[in-house]
Amino acid sequence: MSSAQRIVLASRPDGHPTLDNFRLETFEPEAAGEGQVQLRTLYLSLDPYMRGRMSDAKSYAEPVAIGGVMQGETLCEVIGSRHPGFKAGDVVRAHTGWRTHAVMDGDAVTPVRTFGAPVTTALGVLGMPGFTAYSGMKLIGQPKPGETVVVAAASGPVGSLVGQLARLAGARAVGIAGGPGKCAYVRDELGFDACLDHRDANLGTALAAACPRGIDVYFENVGGRIWDLVFPLLNQYARVPVCGLIAQYSVADTSGPDRLPALMSAVLRRSILLRGFINYEFARDHYDAFQQELGPRVARGEIKYREDIVDGFANAPEAFLGMLSGKNFGKLIIRVA
Amino acid sequence: MSSAQRIVLASRPDGHPTLDNFRLETFEPEAAGEGQVQLRTLYLSLDPYMRGRMSDAKSYAEPVAIGGVMQGETLCEVIGSRHPGFKAGDVVRAHTGWRTHAVMDGDAVTPVRTFGAPVTTALGVLGMPGFTAYSGMKLIGQPKPGETVVVAAASGPVGSLVGQLARLAGARAVGIAGGPGKCAYVRDELGFDACLDHRDANLGTALAAACPRGIDVYFENVGGRIWDLVFPLLNQYARVPVCGLIAQYSVADTSGPDRLPALMSAVLRRSILLRGFINYEFARDHYDAFQQELGPRVARGEIKYREDIVDGFANAPEAFLGMLSGKNFGKLIIRVA
Repeated sequence: MSSAQRIVLASRPDGHPTLDNFRLETFEPEAAGEGQVQLRTLYLSLDPYMRGRMSDAKSYAEPVAIGGVMQGETLCEVIGSRHPGFKAGDVVRAHTGWRTHAVMDGDAVTPVRTFGAPVTTALGVLGMPGFTAYSGMKLIGQPKPGETVVVAAASGPVGSLVGQLARLAGARAVGIAGGPGKCAYVRDELGFDACLDHRDANLGTALAAACPRGIDVYFENVGGRIWDLVFPLLNQYARVPVCGLIAQYSVADTSGPDRLPALMSAVLRRSILLRGFINYEFARDHYDAFQQELGPRVARGEIKYREDIVDGFANAPEAFLGMLSGKNFGKLIIRVA
Repeated sequence: MSSAQRIVLASRPDGHPTLDNFRLETFEPEAAGEGQVQLRTLYLSLDPYMRGRMSDAKSYAEPVAIGGVMQGETLCEVIGSRHPGFKAGDVVRAHTGWRTHAVMDGDAVTPVRTFGAPVTTALGVLGMPGFTAYSGMKLIGQPKPGETVVVAAASGPVGSLVGQLARLAGARAVGIAGGPGKCAYVRDELGFDACLDHRDANLGTALAAACPRGIDVYFENVGGRIWDLVFPLLNQYARVPVCGLIAQYSVADTSGPDRLPALMSAVLRRSILLRGFINYEFARDHYDAFQQELGPRVARGEIKYREDIVDGFANAPEAFLGMLSGKNFGKLIIRVA
């Protein structure tokens, strides 16, 4: 037996995570109890939030324990069911964590619904990253026609949808991405009005030029240096949904000067809104509408997305580290089985 | 003639303002043109926001020009009218600035409406400061029963109403004020659950003890050191309406460490809302409801307020400087005539 594998947190990272922080283990798969389903993982989603769970800082979610299985969402095939809602062969979405096999309560897994789009979109544009973009824009950013929306990591699963939703709302979409290839994709394939390379030494000047009427919505999903360039351009009544700070998850530089007084002063003088959020705050009330609105458009190709699929469960740690440093291009997914 | 006086901005302050930044001038009162009213100032309101107008930093409002009349709201008696809506003897609210006489378009002045409360409340609890508290709580803070609301400058015109509105919403109200006299007033007269002295060296410990379930709404009207004590206590989904930063209007200490990364991280991890606002953003849609809801309660004494009335127009600069350093106790108003 023992063909099942899982990846656990071997140690907490001190600064940037390394492969040593992970450990691959084998384990004996359990059998499903009453009301449960037995699952075989098809795809594992890798997302920036997982970096936060590796640390034990106060957060909305408990950190992963040392020796505990890394958290994460998967697409799984049901290989045994003692729950009336599922039968062998069904494909479901589940929070199994990084493992090849799992047993879950049937009530805790969700049938996959992609409106004819590929099943993997349930982990990306039609899943959690897509809903992050959708809820952050719909409930916090609220772009209006003629406004300017800026988003970094614009070729990623969240950023790419943020810009497309901005365009659908009649706003200008300005992306920031890493390298000419990603920038060309964001402009030419996703239809953003502009995309700037964050490696450009003159990024600040380029950003100001790309936003001649200032910035009305900055969808903050990266943190770090880009904030300093965006900040002076924020307009009166600007909205800043904050859903990720990938650049500072590992290393936050707190040497001076202190930027807090200037931030608070701008918040006051320009009536700026900052709002952190985690997509599941809004899931109960808005997830269905999200799927109904975007599912058919994704299936018809009106909303575009890109996936970066890596083969092999054991490659998850290396792929995850690559994502934290911007090496992936599109939604990062591990093909497990 | 020339009995009319005005106070102009003589120079921009470098750090804390001084009396040298102001100059008292005499001038010849104008006559009212068609559609205008001639006004004699009864009361001049002095408010912290005026400090901002003395500087030329980018803001929601134009700064006062060097040599220009200091901005401000007044209660005036109509002494001549060429507008059909007003007659001599009417008392109106107007943005005349710091002057003893003025001519204004009749359409730009507002009849005073205090539901039987003293006329000066139109500059305080039933005027701009009251509406700042009301709109910040109603539209941003939104306290729920059992939650904890913290506000500094709690004996002032904004803070005192913030706490009373928190109590009316079923929330706990914790104030911070300067000195035992103000704290006793906030607790015993205004009915806050607790009030802490910001001069207390153990303020952080006292604040944590007064907020055993953390802080759900921090109504930010002071800035400075209190933020650092409030910040670690902010709960998941905390709301921070930002309407004033009196402590940093003059001197913002930007020496390190940089507190911005920790702020952004908390905003994300605890889904915190920060929103700067100026009361008039909400005036068109909510000012009438504010007056209808609070006016009768103020008149009946159910909502309490305190005024600090200083006699003599020429004393305005000194009284203003005193307010910036916390010397007033209650809404600061100059009795002009």
